[in-house]
Amino acid sequence: MADSKLLPSPGGDPVAVETLLQDVFGIVVDEAIRKGTSASEKVCEWKEPEELKQLLDLELQSQGESQEQILERCRAVIRYSVKTGHPRFFNQLFSGLDPHSLAGRIITESLNTSPYTYEIAPVFVLMEEEVLKKLRALVGWSSGDGVFCPGGSISNMYAINLARYQRYPDCKQRGLRALPPLALFTSKECHYSINKGAAFLGLGTDSVRVVKADERGKMIPEDLERQISLAEAEGAVPFLVSATSGTTVLGAFDPLDAIADVCQRHGLWLHVDAAWGGSVLLSQTHRHLLDGIQRADSVAWNPHKLLAAGLQCSALLLQDTSNLLKRCHGFQASYLFQQDKFYDVALDTGDKVVQCGRRVDCLKLWLMWKAQGGQGLEQRIDQAFALARYLVEEIKKREGFELVMEVAPVLKERMVKEGSMMIGYQPHGTHGNFFRMVVANPTLTCADIDFLLNELERLGQDL
Amino acid sequence: MADSKLLPSPGGDPVAVETLLQDVFGIVVDEAIRKGTSASEKVCEWKEPEELKQLLDLELQSQGESQEQILERCRAVIRYSVKTGHPRFFNQLFSGLDPHSLAGRIITESLNTSPYTYEIAPVFVLMEEEVLKKLRALVGWSSGDGVFCPGGSISNMYAINLARYQRYPDCKQRGLRALPPLALFTSKECHYSINKGAAFLGLGTDSVRVVKADERGKMIPEDLERQISLAEAEGAVPFLVSATSGTTVLGAFDPLDAIADVCQRHGLWLHVDAAWGGSVLLSQTHRHLLDGIQRADSVAWNPHKLLAAGLQCSALLLQDTSNLLKRCHGFQASYLFQQDKFYDVALDTGDKVVQCGRRVDCLKLWLMWKAQGGQGLEQRIDQAFALARYLVEEIKKREGFELVMEVAPVLKERMVKEGSMMIGYQPHGTHGNFFRMVVANPTLTCADIDFLLNELERLGQDL
Repeated sequence: MADSKLLPSPGGDPVAVETLLQDVFGIVVDEAIRKGTSASEKVCEWKEPEELKQLLDLELQSQGESQEQILERCRAVIRYSVKTGHPRFFNQLFSGLDPHSLAGRIITESLNTSPYTYEIAPVFVLMEEEVLKKLRALVGWSSGDGVFCPGGSISNMYAINLARYQRYPDCKQRGLRALPPLALFTSKECHYSINKGAAFLGLGTDSVRVVKADERGKMIPEDLERQISLAEAEGAVPFLVSATSGTTVLGAFDPLDAIADVCQRHGLWLHVDAAWGGSVLLSQTHRHLLDGIQRADSVAWNPHKLLAAGLQCSALLLQDTSNLLKRCHGFQASYLFQQDKFYDVALDTGDKVVQCGRRVDCLKLWLMWKAQGGQGLEQRIDQAFALARYLVEEIKKREGFELVMEVAPVLKERMVKEGSMMIGYQPHGTHGNFFRMVVANPTLTCADIDFLLNELERLGQDL
Repeated sequence: MADSKLLPSPGGDPVAVETLLQDVFGIVVDEAIRKGTSASEKVCEWKEPEELKQLLDLELQSQGESQEQILERCRAVIRYSVKTGHPRFFNQLFSGLDPHSLAGRIITESLNTSPYTYEIAPVFVLMEEEVLKKLRALVGWSSGDGVFCPGGSISNMYAINLARYQRYPDCKQRGLRALPPLALFTSKECHYSINKGAAFLGLGTDSVRVVKADERGKMIPEDLERQISLAEAEGAVPFLVSATSGTTVLGAFDPLDAIADVCQRHGLWLHVDAAWGGSVLLSQTHRHLLDGIQRADSVAWNPHKLLAAGLQCSALLLQDTSNLLKRCHGFQASYLFQQDKFYDVALDTGDKVVQCGRRVDCLKLWLMWKAQGGQGLEQRIDQAFALARYLVEEIKKREGFELVMEVAPVLKERMVKEGSMMIGYQPHGTHGNFFRMVVANPTLTCADIDFLLNELERLGQDL
């Protein structure tokens, strides 16, 4: 060897590697999977931040630790984490632990690649294409484009960026200063990522025109017309409408057909933020809620929400067949997207995104779909609707449940500190704080809903 | 039950869930970990796209499949994927499989949460803070801010957005049209994400002023001065310089102290794209390459590259202590960031980012660090430098290696189709195609470097 300072290969003992991973996997199965999804265990073990810091001993030192210590740390991390796969976890728009999805995620992590080129991600480049094709077919498109993004917020941003690029391709090079003032439209019930996106993309939040919603949270198409006229009168150029299929707080589905009519009349890009509601397209019974979605230019759909595919799995789907994604985002880096390769470089999809390296988000959804079939996934959606209906009927039977909204923060503190369940709350319009019940966990039963109602009564009985 | 259509709980059999996951984990250990990191196995099993589609049977159907079929699918996915943990994988700026990081990633996947609030990610909110603090300390900052982003490209975008917001807070609301034309500066060797970011953020690529680099790929500070003057003369307002610590093709480290002097003189935000080179800060021997980094306003550092923490682990670090991140990106969504919570809501860090849900990227790095200690990680960096040096010395001893650059695409095709190794190539400046050797895999030895050189000779012996 030329250099005596060279070390022996570190961490290269295959037996030790396998033993560690087997041990950790055993802990995961016991603590995160078996206990983490068991209704008889706590959904969280609440600790005050300062106490938790002590318990976790977070500080990073010079010296490494023994295998035993590391395994103890793995147990502690799981123990004090919230169990989002638990049947009493209703706190976010995701819940539940799908075993096939988790299997896909473990394989993804072990393969650790990035789907920018066919060369280093042959399986996943082809698989992403197939999964996106399937999602597009459910939207109603026989062709198109798309990509997985790191979350629905970024999918929504992509849509805004694509819409402005399509109208003003100059923008990529010359920037927004070369353009007239732009206006985009969304309802007051939209996800906050539309505002975040407008700011990030340099449009500014002033460019977001807020359209009224009805009492159920649906965008009012007549007000959309009015807002478009107003914006034009102020000298702005309308370019995009972002409708929502499944709003964050009320779960409302905007009337897409009526909105598409308005977009068609004014030549506007129609984006549908179906991050939450997109999965309803799998249900023959309920997909009418998204009637008209096939008229959209772009759709954001997060299978990590209602399908429990695991964070993150967010598809941006496009009706476009003109390679808009690559034209808008591409920069043909010579070290990655060489044109003198020995295979069809159209398979190098990495230049469609504004990331460079990105995670493989298709395998978990693909494997779950292969295992459950479209039918199995459809049943989950129908089950969620049936349980939500059951919840509504049960609430009607119980006295005093309207009062809950005034004491939501107190009930929330009690449930978290006891670890019995987790539900999100928020104010809305003229209403004070109320609990937002998210029915997403695919293993949920009526018994879990009964527990929830009884537990709310129990936690609040002295209030 | 109120609704007779309710199904029995699907997928709720805990024994079946555990059996599936145990079986899949067994396949992962055999195929991805044992064989995937063994030098006696292929680094990839090349298939033409059409053949691979047939082999994988990608189509998603209505009917679900049996457990056996699913396990067979898991095997096929791993078999035809590139083994990025293999000692002959030199193709990207990441390589190798760290067992502790993988353990952390498996736990992360099983817990499936998003670090937006302390409420649903208590462990990871505190852990992210601690890990970022440690990375900042290595930069040379005793205070500051930061966040993990989905990749270095988005970290770089954040820096650009923060710099313009700091100078023009109005931009968030009023957009770029309210601002003078802006200019940012980076060298011709910079990562392509700077251009992608400028386009995405609405600045346009014209706002990116290219500074000359010397023959080793380092930015020339005198030319930076010149470009700033030129931009000002053209009526643009300079606001940011993006220096690079570890360029993508040549691995060059820009002279940060000299660049910081220029920034100081002109009142410009200094961003350092240390996605590749940041990990060198762990080495007492080599960290001088980043001298001056403590004078930066922001640093992007990807531990998923040289530290093999797994895709993705990309930290954006800030010297700022004025809550700039939250002010720039925050929107205080009422359903997530309630202010009437029962704990300190400063722990709800989710409003620092433009994503809503985002992945937990800290645990894999934290666990690896706990296991290896800072010393163990330092040894890895030193080992990588020693191996790179060994490679250079060995190349000097061999005849004919300059000729390689002309035949790189042919050698690449041969090595991939044989599956013996993977190295990236590209042209650069006046040079034709040449191989870019990335020494990143922590288990690499001199024998692997010898293999590489012998294999290049063998593959090219008839050329």
